[in-house]
Amino acid sequence: MSKPSIPQGTRDFSPVVVRKRQYILNTLRDIFELYGFQPLETPAMENLVTLTGKYGEEGDRLIFKILNNGLHEKKEQDKVKLNEEWDKVLSRPYSSPVVTERALRYDLTIPFARYVVMNQNELAFPFRRYQMQPVWRADRPQAGRYREFWQCDADVVGSTSLINEAELLCIYQSAFHQLQIPVKIKINSRKLLAALAELCGTPEKMIDITVALDKLDKIGWDGVTKELRERGIEDAGIEQISKVISITGDNQAKLEQLSTLMANTPIGLEGIGELSTSLSYYSGLADAGWGGTIEVDISLARGLNYYTGVIVEVVCDSDKVKMGSIGGGGRYDDLTGLFGLKGLSGVGVSFGIDRIYDVLEQLDAFPAQLASGAKVMLVNFGGENERYAISVLKQLRDAGVAAELYPDVAKFDKQMKYANKRAMAYVILPGDEEREKQLVSLKNFATGAQQMITLQECVDLLK
Amino acid sequence: MSKPSIPQGTRDFSPVVVRKRQYILNTLRDIFELYGFQPLETPAMENLVTLTGKYGEEGDRLIFKILNNGLHEKKEQDKVKLNEEWDKVLSRPYSSPVVTERALRYDLTIPFARYVVMNQNELAFPFRRYQMQPVWRADRPQAGRYREFWQCDADVVGSTSLINEAELLCIYQSAFHQLQIPVKIKINSRKLLAALAELCGTPEKMIDITVALDKLDKIGWDGVTKELRERGIEDAGIEQISKVISITGDNQAKLEQLSTLMANTPIGLEGIGELSTSLSYYSGLADAGWGGTIEVDISLARGLNYYTGVIVEVVCDSDKVKMGSIGGGGRYDDLTGLFGLKGLSGVGVSFGIDRIYDVLEQLDAFPAQLASGAKVMLVNFGGENERYAISVLKQLRDAGVAAELYPDVAKFDKQMKYANKRAMAYVILPGDEEREKQLVSLKNFATGAQQMITLQECVDLLK
Repeated sequence: MSKPSIPQGTRDFSPVVVRKRQYILNTLRDIFELYGFQPLETPAMENLVTLTGKYGEEGDRLIFKILNNGLHEKKEQDKVKLNEEWDKVLSRPYSSPVVTERALRYDLTIPFARYVVMNQNELAFPFRRYQMQPVWRADRPQAGRYREFWQCDADVVGSTSLINEAELLCIYQSAFHQLQIPVKIKINSRKLLAALAELCGTPEKMIDITVALDKLDKIGWDGVTKELRERGIEDAGIEQISKVISITGDNQAKLEQLSTLMANTPIGLEGIGELSTSLSYYSGLADAGWGGTIEVDISLARGLNYYTGVIVEVVCDSDKVKMGSIGGGGRYDDLTGLFGLKGLSGVGVSFGIDRIYDVLEQLDAFPAQLASGAKVMLVNFGGENERYAISVLKQLRDAGVAAELYPDVAKFDKQMKYANKRAMAYVILPGDEEREKQLVSLKNFATGAQQMITLQECVDLLK
Repeated sequence: MSKPSIPQGTRDFSPVVVRKRQYILNTLRDIFELYGFQPLETPAMENLVTLTGKYGEEGDRLIFKILNNGLHEKKEQDKVKLNEEWDKVLSRPYSSPVVTERALRYDLTIPFARYVVMNQNELAFPFRRYQMQPVWRADRPQAGRYREFWQCDADVVGSTSLINEAELLCIYQSAFHQLQIPVKIKINSRKLLAALAELCGTPEKMIDITVALDKLDKIGWDGVTKELRERGIEDAGIEQISKVISITGDNQAKLEQLSTLMANTPIGLEGIGELSTSLSYYSGLADAGWGGTIEVDISLARGLNYYTGVIVEVVCDSDKVKMGSIGGGGRYDDLTGLFGLKGLSGVGVSFGIDRIYDVLEQLDAFPAQLASGAKVMLVNFGGENERYAISVLKQLRDAGVAAELYPDVAKFDKQMKYANKRAMAYVILPGDEEREKQLVSLKNFATGAQQMITLQECVDLLK
């Protein structure tokens, strides 16, 4: 028999990892609920036609498709047709519904849009939903990139109020504050990027400009200049861009300078106004004691084909951590239009669960007690002592203390080895003396210190 | 554009449903943790070879297989080979790794066994794990049967101690007690079923006998007699079976009668001894105030090819509910042997999450507050009043009250309609008077009663 394995790019989550992941998900869930967001879960399988064409050509390639069942039970005369369909699978990326009509969820956004359209008559708009589920992509696996990974999204659809932008910024602030991750939230507007392209005299080149600008961190201004030239921006335009991205100061100072530089572009002034209003709502809602920063950053780009207003991105702001963005989002105008429901504006943010996990590991910021689960094990000395141990076990659990009894009457060393491997904080030794005196001996596994105490004292100590 | 839909047999879980499901899962998770069980999560995709042949021929048919990616990018000369492989997909149920090498998880048991074998050197045995994840089966969808549904399993492997059986019975007891579902736990041993076949003089017909007995509830003793005859059991044997299943009294009385009837079958006495010990451990651990019952039931059969010792099943014990078993399990001897690790005994139980959900609905036993999430909405009167509303909103959330502000300055009726649809318990009306007096008007949505109070009074009332 060959050794069992799991598919490339997938992971088993061991107990310690599950607990740490639950810690992240529970922290986020509690915040979403506090902010009045509603949970949604959609099926892992969607109809392939729901997903196809929504993620670009590359996305279509990476969708995991599910083979229709019962193909081998088809009648002989149907097999000619099946073979024709098979040819389609081999020759086109879009496959054939006779061979595959279902596929695995590729993100949470398209299923959300599909759900909203299907349930538009029952939903209360504005609809504020959060969703935390795995998605699957047939990407080439590499460090930090998996074929099964979790997404976590929060969106508000059916409202154009900038209070929504502010609420989502507060959710970011609150989440990273509670998770104790120092972050910088970058904020921009697609409208400022459009205005920038107008200032260059090339409104049609907005995407070229932003793709180049997006690399500022990596290749510096000289690199960006070179790329802008290659993309056909004139020197006068580059001069304009240089002025805009050179603005300094706090957010208010930046917005004032932008108002001057973009005084003649209505779309720019609109974007500046929206940023200003969002930040003003935000400062009314946010926690003043928060350590993180929020910063207007005109070079922030993010999936331009999709967003239409404010865009945001979160990066970890610590020397100890090297990591790309751990969250991002923005306003979009017509997501549900893909499925026939026009004119429903929305704004959303997502949390990169796997990256947040890695950041917490690097910062050593997971709560210590997540490691072991039950923190006390009762040693099993058998016979009368086993019966006594069981009564102690029951009373500990009745008091809410997570506890376990070693189930077999094994050698003491073997039982202690188990307790050690399970990272137990304490063991209880219910032997003859303890049973006769109706006491428990509690041993601190780290220090080796041992004391014989009443059960109530033991409960108080363990709680 | 055609109307969007989801695949047959799958479900979207709306906010109310997600909250109710979370309530079930959280209740179970807390109990597992209290009992020292450890969480495990495995990937949705397994290698097809891991799953094939583990669930019988019918199971193989129902596994969802994933089409390999990039098939349409193969070179022309590879397509001959691909077409040959495609023929295999059409002609055999076991498919072809060139066309499909991955499949969706079909249950939690095989991935658990696979995980234990892969991680045997790191794990602390006995390994107590719980797992709550969706599984997928290409069954024909019907009422209560889905193609994507959740399983929840708890197992202990690496220990033959009957304390484990007792612990799992206590977990059942504790779970259904907390969920407020009245249940009967039926318990039996595969060894008693083997003894019964011996008593009939046909030890090789154990499965025939149990398959017939399993129908006692449905077809009555006359029906069972008929089926036993058809399956080749002599009248003398049927007489023996009749005696055994006619035993009455409490569990101890039943076990005593069985000891007499099976006095000459060593395997029967072994089974009786194991049941007796398990029940004795159970009574030491279980909550005496529990309303449910645990009952030795010699007609209980359950997946015989798999189990080797104690078997259990849970049914809802209420006139209001018609439902099959909502949980079951038992001891098995060689699960990990499938993947090359021999001799690891285990015992496990599972919870039928979807059925438990339906039972809770039928009993109307879900906690009332799960419905709406946030229980208060602030009406948005715009301008100065909006600013005041935001400050109230912030203070409510700081005090831990889940709250939301209607984000747009919409007509009053529209905002109230939203609050009603969202099943809000309260609305807050932050108007001119409230703002000037720095008070809030809190309106009970059900009674219509409205009072103007301080923010602190409002917080106290809402918490």
